[in-house]
Amino acid sequence: MCELLGMSANVPTDICFSFAGLMQRGGGTGPHRDGWGIGFYEGKALRAFHDPEPSVNSPIAELVCQYPIKSCTVISHIRQANVGQVNLENTHPFSRELWGFTWTFAHNGQLDKSLFEKELHFYQPVGTTDSEYAFCWLLGQIRKAFPQPPANNRELFELIRYCSDQLRALGVFNMLLSNSEFLYCYCTTKLNYLTRRAPFGEAQLRDFDLSIDFRGETNPNDVVTVIATEPLTDNEPWLQIESGEAIVFAQGEVCYQQR
Amino acid sequence: MCELLGMSANVPTDICFSFAGLMQRGGGTGPHRDGWGIGFYEGKALRAFHDPEPSVNSPIAELVCQYPIKSCTVISHIRQANVGQVNLENTHPFSRELWGFTWTFAHNGQLDKSLFEKELHFYQPVGTTDSEYAFCWLLGQIRKAFPQPPANNRELFELIRYCSDQLRALGVFNMLLSNSEFLYCYCTTKLNYLTRRAPFGEAQLRDFDLSIDFRGETNPNDVVTVIATEPLTDNEPWLQIESGEAIVFAQGEVCYQQR
Repeated sequence: MCELLGMSANVPTDICFSFAGLMQRGGGTGPHRDGWGIGFYEGKALRAFHDPEPSVNSPIAELVCQYPIKSCTVISHIRQANVGQVNLENTHPFSRELWGFTWTFAHNGQLDKSLFEKELHFYQPVGTTDSEYAFCWLLGQIRKAFPQPPANNRELFELIRYCSDQLRALGVFNMLLSNSEFLYCYCTTKLNYLTRRAPFGEAQLRDFDLSIDFRGETNPNDVVTVIATEPLTDNEPWLQIESGEAIVFAQGEVCYQQR
Repeated sequence: MCELLGMSANVPTDICFSFAGLMQRGGGTGPHRDGWGIGFYEGKALRAFHDPEPSVNSPIAELVCQYPIKSCTVISHIRQANVGQVNLENTHPFSRELWGFTWTFAHNGQLDKSLFEKELHFYQPVGTTDSEYAFCWLLGQIRKAFPQPPANNRELFELIRYCSDQLRALGVFNMLLSNSEFLYCYCTTKLNYLTRRAPFGEAQLRDFDLSIDFRGETNPNDVVTVIATEPLTDNEPWLQIESGEAIVFAQGEVCYQQR
């Protein structure tokens, strides 16, 4: 199993605090030693860092922690390999361009081998993971159904959910997907989220002796949602996403939810 | 105008020395203050860093210099903007997946506005530069002609050259393109290359007080070709690529050349 981390916010927000907690699970407090990656959107552009080394002692992870990149939409992943070798091409998040947007995807879980019988359209995997194959299939399904972006996002979210259900039928499919504007979350076994908004308080990381007082870091209108496999903090009201549930966030708020 | 840097080698090679010279031109000895980017292949995977800040004082550039990433194929670019705002989505190199390979592209020069009348197939730009549009058009032409990879690369190189000639007809088109296995170089105005092989000697950077003795860094069978807009060293026999000439390198050696 792997760990996922996502963020959706209405102002460019520094994810360092949550990332610092997640990185400890990459060979520190967790067994996820097989690489990590993070993608930050800056406008439509994706800034991504990938490392097949354990995150807990990665110089690139340290750079990401120390160099505060602010973003409204973030997807991160630390990996414990099951399918596919430990190397850069098998390191999440994966990305592809569709409709002039860079779509980014990370997956936690394992899918049955019959996944590889699904016919791909437009997108081919570079590496050998089930996750990247599932992403290529899913994005191909979207492109096939909508050669141009649909007039309303609800149609798009329904299609992604329909495809996600098919992937869940093949095993464990917890995933995060974004095109920069929204963050789509789908749960099979474990995915939790927390929305921080005024009045802000203090948060204490579970995995690392670090706390932060968001009162000093935020404005009253800020809305920041963090999504993670397991809650990252001890003293905040995380909500569990149900099995088979899809939630989409935009600017920190829920914009679609279907159980 | 921008500066290009490429490398093709038969063993994973550290490009830090050449990169250190190039970075000085990003706001130091050169006027290219509008961002920089570098893509390293590790196997089929691309590790890319992009920064819309001037390279000469970029913390990410410093990380790249200090953290020796070894690669057989590298494409780098520093930018002086003409078309498109200075932001991350307009920062080269650009990349897209084709046939399960990540293709990477960087361009130096400016193309006529009629470029944007060319019909795109499959790939859409995320940003607003002429360069990314040209890349999307070029890769779409390849995909249209060869839905599957052609049996021999010569057909592919001929097609890329045919498309490059059409882009050169629209202005200045110096470019580097790679799929991880080969490095395709096309020149309109300025592109130089240098192949280092045994017996290795010492090299002195032009832009920065730094020299390196490759005798201590190499094995007798190593072949490393560096391609740059302007020669990066003072004391080595750089060769100029001619206007309208295409050269393709694989593992440091010329594998296709057409004037």
